[in-house]
Amino acid sequence: MAVSMDDDVPLILTLDESGSNTSAPDEELDREDLPNENGGSYDIVNDVSSPATGDYHSEQRSARHNWEMNYQEAAIYLQEGENNDKFFTHPKNAKALAAYLFVHNHLFYLMELTTALLLLLLSLCEAPAVPILRLGIYIHATLELFALVVVVFELSMKMRWMGFYTYIRHKRTMVKTCVLLVQFVEAIVVLVRQTSHVRITRALRCIFLVDCRYCGAVRRNLRQIFQSLPPFIDILLLLLFFMVIFAILGFYLFSSNYSDPYFSTLENSLVNLFVLLTTSNFPDVMMPSYSRNPWSCVFFIVYLSIELYFIMNLLLAVVFDTFSDIEKRKFKSLLLHKRTAIQHAYRLLVSKQRPSGISFKQFEGLMRFYKPRMCARERYLTFKALNQSNTTLVSLKDFYNLYEVVGLKWKAKRNREHWFDDLPRTAFLIFKGINILVKSRAFQYAMYTVVAVNGIWILIQTFMLQGGNFFPRDVPWSYIVFLTIYGVELLLKTTGLGPIEYLSSGWNLFDFSVTLFAFLGLLALAFNMEPFYFIVVLRPLQLLRLFKLKKRYRNVLDTMFELFPRMASLGLTLLIFYYSFAIVGVEFFSGVVYPNCCNTSTVADAYRWVNHTVGNKTVVEEGYYYLNNFDNILNSFVTLFELTVVNDWYIIMEGVTSQTSHWSRLYFMIFYIVTMVVMTIIVAFILEAFVFRMNYTRKNQGSEEDNGIVLEKEISKEEMAGIIELYRRNCAAFETAPLQKVIGQMDKYEQTSMLFLGRRSRTKSDLSMKMYEEEIQEWYEEHSRKEDQWQDDVFLSGNPVPSSGLRQRSQTVI
Amino acid sequence: MAVSMDDDVPLILTLDESGSNTSAPDEELDREDLPNENGGSYDIVNDVSSPATGDYHSEQRSARHNWEMNYQEAAIYLQEGENNDKFFTHPKNAKALAAYLFVHNHLFYLMELTTALLLLLLSLCEAPAVPILRLGIYIHATLELFALVVVVFELSMKMRWMGFYTYIRHKRTMVKTCVLLVQFVEAIVVLVRQTSHVRITRALRCIFLVDCRYCGAVRRNLRQIFQSLPPFIDILLLLLFFMVIFAILGFYLFSSNYSDPYFSTLENSLVNLFVLLTTSNFPDVMMPSYSRNPWSCVFFIVYLSIELYFIMNLLLAVVFDTFSDIEKRKFKSLLLHKRTAIQHAYRLLVSKQRPSGISFKQFEGLMRFYKPRMCARERYLTFKALNQSNTTLVSLKDFYNLYEVVGLKWKAKRNREHWFDDLPRTAFLIFKGINILVKSRAFQYAMYTVVAVNGIWILIQTFMLQGGNFFPRDVPWSYIVFLTIYGVELLLKTTGLGPIEYLSSGWNLFDFSVTLFAFLGLLALAFNMEPFYFIVVLRPLQLLRLFKLKKRYRNVLDTMFELFPRMASLGLTLLIFYYSFAIVGVEFFSGVVYPNCCNTSTVADAYRWVNHTVGNKTVVEEGYYYLNNFDNILNSFVTLFELTVVNDWYIIMEGVTSQTSHWSRLYFMIFYIVTMVVMTIIVAFILEAFVFRMNYTRKNQGSEEDNGIVLEKEISKEEMAGIIELYRRNCAAFETAPLQKVIGQMDKYEQTSMLFLGRRSRTKSDLSMKMYEEEIQEWYEEHSRKEDQWQDDVFLSGNPVPSSGLRQRSQTVI
Repeated sequence: MAVSMDDDVPLILTLDESGSNTSAPDEELDREDLPNENGGSYDIVNDVSSPATGDYHSEQRSARHNWEMNYQEAAIYLQEGENNDKFFTHPKNAKALAAYLFVHNHLFYLMELTTALLLLLLSLCEAPAVPILRLGIYIHATLELFALVVVVFELSMKMRWMGFYTYIRHKRTMVKTCVLLVQFVEAIVVLVRQTSHVRITRALRCIFLVDCRYCGAVRRNLRQIFQSLPPFIDILLLLLFFMVIFAILGFYLFSSNYSDPYFSTLENSLVNLFVLLTTSNFPDVMMPSYSRNPWSCVFFIVYLSIELYFIMNLLLAVVFDTFSDIEKRKFKSLLLHKRTAIQHAYRLLVSKQRPSGISFKQFEGLMRFYKPRMCARERYLTFKALNQSNTTLVSLKDFYNLYEVVGLKWKAKRNREHWFDDLPRTAFLIFKGINILVKSRAFQYAMYTVVAVNGIWILIQTFMLQGGNFFPRDVPWSYIVFLTIYGVELLLKTTGLGPIEYLSSGWNLFDFSVTLFAFLGLLALAFNMEPFYFIVVLRPLQLLRLFKLKKRYRNVLDTMFELFPRMASLGLTLLIFYYSFAIVGVEFFSGVVYPNCCNTSTVADAYRWVNHTVGNKTVVEEGYYYLNNFDNILNSFVTLFELTVVNDWYIIMEGVTSQTSHWSRLYFMIFYIVTMVVMTIIVAFILEAFVFRMNYTRKNQGSEEDNGIVLEKEISKEEMAGIIELYRRNCAAFETAPLQKVIGQMDKYEQTSMLFLGRRSRTKSDLSMKMYEEEIQEWYEEHSRKEDQWQDDVFLSGNPVPSSGLRQRSQTVI
Repeated sequence: MAVSMDDDVPLILTLDESGSNTSAPDEELDREDLPNENGGSYDIVNDVSSPATGDYHSEQRSARHNWEMNYQEAAIYLQEGENNDKFFTHPKNAKALAAYLFVHNHLFYLMELTTALLLLLLSLCEAPAVPILRLGIYIHATLELFALVVVVFELSMKMRWMGFYTYIRHKRTMVKTCVLLVQFVEAIVVLVRQTSHVRITRALRCIFLVDCRYCGAVRRNLRQIFQSLPPFIDILLLLLFFMVIFAILGFYLFSSNYSDPYFSTLENSLVNLFVLLTTSNFPDVMMPSYSRNPWSCVFFIVYLSIELYFIMNLLLAVVFDTFSDIEKRKFKSLLLHKRTAIQHAYRLLVSKQRPSGISFKQFEGLMRFYKPRMCARERYLTFKALNQSNTTLVSLKDFYNLYEVVGLKWKAKRNREHWFDDLPRTAFLIFKGINILVKSRAFQYAMYTVVAVNGIWILIQTFMLQGGNFFPRDVPWSYIVFLTIYGVELLLKTTGLGPIEYLSSGWNLFDFSVTLFAFLGLLALAFNMEPFYFIVVLRPLQLLRLFKLKKRYRNVLDTMFELFPRMASLGLTLLIFYYSFAIVGVEFFSGVVYPNCCNTSTVADAYRWVNHTVGNKTVVEEGYYYLNNFDNILNSFVTLFELTVVNDWYIIMEGVTSQTSHWSRLYFMIFYIVTMVVMTIIVAFILEAFVFRMNYTRKNQGSEEDNGIVLEKEISKEEMAGIIELYRRNCAAFETAPLQKVIGQMDKYEQTSMLFLGRRSRTKSDLSMKMYEEEIQEWYEEHSRKEDQWQDDVFLSGNPVPSSGLRQRSQTVI
C-alpha cells in the first residue's frame, strides 16, 4: 500500500500545468522519499520498532510510519504557532506526545472550563450564600473537593506532557499548583471542622479559569495590563505625591474652621482629597470653607485642574502610548513565532528526495492532523492557494502564508446569480422583480422613512401615556400596522434575495430578530402574558436601522462588531478582578451594613430607613444605601459596579468604615485604583482600536469596499480526477464523495474547470499586516538572520549534510 | 550716498572664501542693481514720485526708494507667513501700507487687548455686580461707550488697510462689526433708559478678545474645536439616540413603581438618564427599582456600559483621531504658507543684476524691517547660517530655512569654561573645587536625601499637630535646619556654576524660588505676620525635586513645560466659553437661589439652612448649595466650574429649575455638552501631544540629549572688517559699535576668527519637521508643481522676461 501511495507522485506532476518539476518522477526513487531527519522528535521510537535493515517492505512501512509521525509533529508545531504556545513545551517523545494529544482536545478543554466554572460558582452557595442557592456545608465542600481532584488530574496529565523540569519552569502552571494545594487543604479543613472559616483564598479561584485554554484572550489581557503597569505606577506616584502635598496644605488652611469636617485631621484631609480625585464629593467638600471665604475655591480649582484634568489625562496618555507600543510588539512576536512554527513544520515535511518543497501528498498528510475536519476538496484548494509558483511543490516562501490561507472557507463560484434562476420562467420573472425592488434605493429609503415614523410614533405614544395604563388589553392598531409593514419587508427580502443571502448580512439578521421579537411582543400583548411585556419595549431598537444611512456610523458599528470578541474578553478580565474583590468583600464586610446602621457616621442619611406615620398615612423614608452591601456574592458584584461608576462611592465606603475599622478604606481605595487601571486600559484599547482602524481606512481610501479576504482558484476536471485517484489508492475512498460531486456538477454545466472562492473575514492581524507592511520585511530579515545563526548552531551540527548537498545527491542519482 | 552704498558689492565679494561669484562685480553695473519688478505692489507710487528719466542721480534715488519699498514689503510677507495671515489681506498700495504699519505694532495690539479686557471686566461692575465693584449705571455705560468707540477706531483702521471689499470678505471682522453695532445700540439704550435691561448679548463681548492679535492661539483652538465638531456631533447623536431608547424602556419598566420618582414621566426618565450619563445620580437613580426587584440593576448596568463606557470613549477616540489628523493638516498648510511667503519675499529681494540669489546688502535691508531689534552682528550671522553654499548670494533653496534660522540667539563661543577662569589662582582653585563638588553625583544624591527627609519630617510633624496650635510663636528648629541646608546648597551652586549658568536651568530656578519662599515663610513666622502664613505651607513643594531622579518624570515634566503655552491658550478658550455662559446665567438666574429656596423640589435638603436650638446650644444645619448661584459673574464662574466637574451638578440644576421653569434645564444640558466638547478636545490634545512626543523620543533614541537647535558659525576678522565698512558707508555707523567690540575681543585673544553659537529651544514645529520628514518632501513637490502653474499664469504674464533671460542679459553686458 505504501508503494502505491508513493506512486501518486507522478500523477500530481502530470496534473500540474507548468513543467518546472525539479524533483525526479521515477518510481525507483520512491523508496528514497524519506522524511528529512532534522527536527523530528520521535525518531527514536521508530528506530526501535523497525530497525532500518535491508528488508524493503519493512523499510517502506517504517518510512510510512516516519511520515505519519512527522505529519503529526508538524501539525503540533503549527498549532503551537497558532496558539502562541512556547516551543519549549513541545512534546519531546512518544509518551509526552500521547499526553499532549490527550490534553489538547476540546473535550479536555471543556472539562477544564467546567471545573473552573464550578469552583467559581460554588461561592454562590457557600457560607454567606445567595438565599435561594444555599447548600449544606457537606454538599458544597464535597463538590469543591471533587472539582479540585479533577484539577489535580488535569495537572498530572499536563506534567506528563511537559515533563517535570519544564512543568516546574512553567510559571503559570506552578502558581496554579500552589493555589490548588492551598484550596485542597482548606476544603478538607472545612469538611473536618464542619464550618466555613474566613477563606479569602477563594479569591484566588479565578486562576483556574484564567488557565483554561479557552481563556487565552483573558491571559493576554492580563499580560498587557501587567506590562502597562510600570509607567502607570510612575504617574500614579506623581498623582499621590500631589495629593499628599495638597492634603498638608489643606490641613493647614482649613482645619481651623470647626464647621469643616473634611480637613479636621491629616487623615481626613488625605481621604477627602482621594475622594475628591474621583470628584465624588466635589462641591460638598468645598462648601464649608467656601461659605467662610469665597477665595478658598482657588485651592480646589487648582487641585482638580492639576490632578483630575492634567495628571489623570497624563495617565491615559502614558497607558495609551505603552499600549500601542505593546500591541505592535505583540503583533511582531506573534508573527515571528508563527513563522518559526512554519519553519519547524516545513523541515518535517520536506523529503530527502525533494528538499525544495512540500508535495500535495505531504501536505494532505499534515492537514489530516492539523485540520481533521477539512474535506479533501478544501485541502486541495488550500494547497493550490498556497502554491503561488504553480509547480508541484510548495516552497518555504509560499508555505509561510499557511495561516492566512488555511482559514479560508471555499465555495464553488456559482454560475447562477440568484437562488431562483432554476425556477420556471414566470416564477423567475416574479422573483427577479422582487429582487430588483428589494435592492432598489427607493425601497430602502421608504423603509427608513417607515422606521423613522414608527420611532416618532412610539415617542409620542409614550409621552401621551403619562402614568396611565401602559399595557392596554387590546393591541393598539399602530403596532399592528407597523409590524405588518416590517413583516412584508422581511418576506420580500427573504424571497427576493434567498434566505441564505438574506441572513448572511449582519444588518438583515438584526432586522430579522427585532421583527421576530416585535411579533412575539404582539402575541404577548394579544394573549396578555405579563412576564413577556418587556419584549414590547424592545420595539424602539428598530430605530437603530437608521444608522445604516451614514458612512461614519457604519464604520463605527463595523468596528464595534470587529472589536466585540476583544471587548468581551476585556469584560471577562474585569469580571475576574470583580470576583476576587467580591470574595474579599464578602469575607470581611458581609452583614455589616443594614438599615439605620450608620447613625454615627457622616453619611447616616443615606442609610436611614424610617417608617413613621403622618396623619393617617404611613410615610416610608428610605435611604436605600443599605442595599449596597456585601451580603452575598451577587450583591457584592452590584456594589462593586457602583464603586466602579465611582459616583457617591464614598457613601458606601464611609458606611462600611463606620461599622468596621478605618482600615477598610484600604479595600475601597485599592479597588478604585485597580478599576482605574483596568478602565484606563479599556479606554486605551478602544482608542487604539478605533484610531488604528481609522488610519487604516484613511490609508486605503481609494480601494474598494471591504469584503474580507477573498481568493479565487480554478480546478480543472483532470486535476480533480487525479486527486480522486490519489485518495482512492490511499484507502481513503470515503473522502472522494464530495470530489465526485464536484465532477458531477462540472459535467452538468459542461465545464472543463470550476472556479472556487475562498473567503474569510478580515482580522486585526490582517489589518496590522497591511499597516506595518514595510516594517514586517525588516523584522523578517532580522529574524532570518538570527534564525540562520541558530540553524547553523543547532541543526547542522546534528545533520552534517547541507540541504544543497541533498539536492545534489538526488540529481546525481537521476 | 546711494552710489557709495552700491560700492559695497565688490567688498563683500572679496570677503567671501569661495570664488564662485556668478554676478558681475563692476561698478558700471550698479545702476542696474534694480529690484526685480514682479510682485512689488507699491511700484505705482514710485513711478509717480520719480519717473524713470535719464537723470542718473534721481534714478539712483528712485532705485534706492524701490529697494526700501521692496524690503518693507518682503518683511510684511515674512510676517504674514509667520502669523499665518492670508495673503489676500496683504496691503495693496501705499495708503494701505501706512494703515497696515499703524495696525501692526505692539502699541496697537496692546490697545486692542486692553479695550477687549475692559469690555469683559465691565461685567464685574454691571447690574448684578460683585458687591465691592458696583458702579453707577452712568459710569459703566460711559466706560462701555468709550471702549466701543475705541473698537470702532480700530476697525476703521483695519478697513483702511484691507480695503472695503477684503474687509467685507473677512468673516471674523464682519462678525465683530455686527457684534459691535449691537453692543453700541444697547449701550446707548442703557444710557437713555438709565436702567440695565436683559443683555444676553453681553455674552458676545468675548469676540473682541478673540479677535486680538495676541489671542491667535485661542482662535486656532476655536477653529480646531469647530473642525472637530462634525464627527463629534455624529457620535453625540448616537449617544442621545440610545438615551431616548433607554428612556422609553425605563419609563415602561419602572413607572409603575410609585416610590420611584426618577421614571414617573417620560420627561423625568429622559432627564434622569441624561444625568446618569454623567454618573451624577448613579446609585440613587437605581435604588428604588433595585429595592423592589434586584434584577432591575441589569437595566442600569447595560445603559452605563453602552453609554458611559463605550460611546463616551468612542467620542474621545473619534475626536482624538480627527484632532491628530487636523494637527497634521494644520502643520502642512502652515508650512506651505510659510514657504509661499518666503517665495514672495525672495522675488522682491532678487535684483535684476543678480537673479540667482540675495546678497547681504539686500538681506540686511530686509532684516531692518523684519527684525528691527536685531543687531548687525546677528544679522550677518543669520545670513551666514542661511548661506549653506558659502557663496555671496543666498539662493531660494537656502532662503527657505529663514524661519528656522532667524529665531536663533547668537553668542560668541566662550574660550573660558567657567565664570571664574579669570580670577587669581587661589580663588580659581576654590571655585573650581566648589564647581566639581556641586556637579558631583554624591552631592546631588545627598541633596535628594535631605529633601526626602524633610518631606517625611513635614508629614510627621503635620500628623502630630492634630488640631492644635498650627503656627507656634517660636520657629521650629527643624525648619531652620533644613532652610540652612537649602541656603548653603543655593550658595554653593551659585558660586560654583556662576549665577547665569545656575539660573539658566528651569529646575534650578524652581529650587531658587522655593527656597526664597521658604525664607520668606521663615520671616513671616519670625515676625508673626499672619497673612503670610500660607507661604509656610508651600514648603512641601521642595519635594518636587525628587522627581528629577527618574527619566520618565523628567520627560513628563519637560513635555509639560513645552505644552504649557498651548495648555494656557486652551484654558483661556475654556474661560471664554465660561464667560458667555456666565453672562447668560447671570441674566436669567441671578438671585433665584437662596437658603431654603427649593423646599418643593427633590433636592430640598441641599438648600436647607436651619438655625435651631438643641438644649442650650444653637445648631446650624447648613445645606450649602445656595452658595452655588449665579448672583454675579464671579459666583457664576465658580458655579460653572462645579458644573464642569459634573459631580452633583443635577442638584444645582434642579434647584434652579424648581425656582424658574423646566426649560432652564436646557441651559445646564447645553453647558454640559459644550464643556464635554472642550474637555474631550483638551484630553485629545494632551494625548496627542504626549504620544507624539513619546514617539519622537522613541524614534531618536540613539541620538544625544535634547539641547534644542544649535548652529555653529565662524567669522574671520576680515569679514568683520568688511561688514563694518559696509555699515559705515551706509551711514549706519551707530550699528558698528558691537561689531567693533567683537574685533576688539579677537585682538585680545589673538584670534583671526571667532566662533559663534546660535541656539534656540526646540518647538513642536521642529519635532513635526523631523517626524514627517518624508511626507514633507512630497508636500513640497506637490506645492511647487501648483506654484509653478500659478507662476506661469500670474507672474510671467506681467513680466515676459524669464529669469534665465535676465542672467543672459547681464552676462552679455559684461
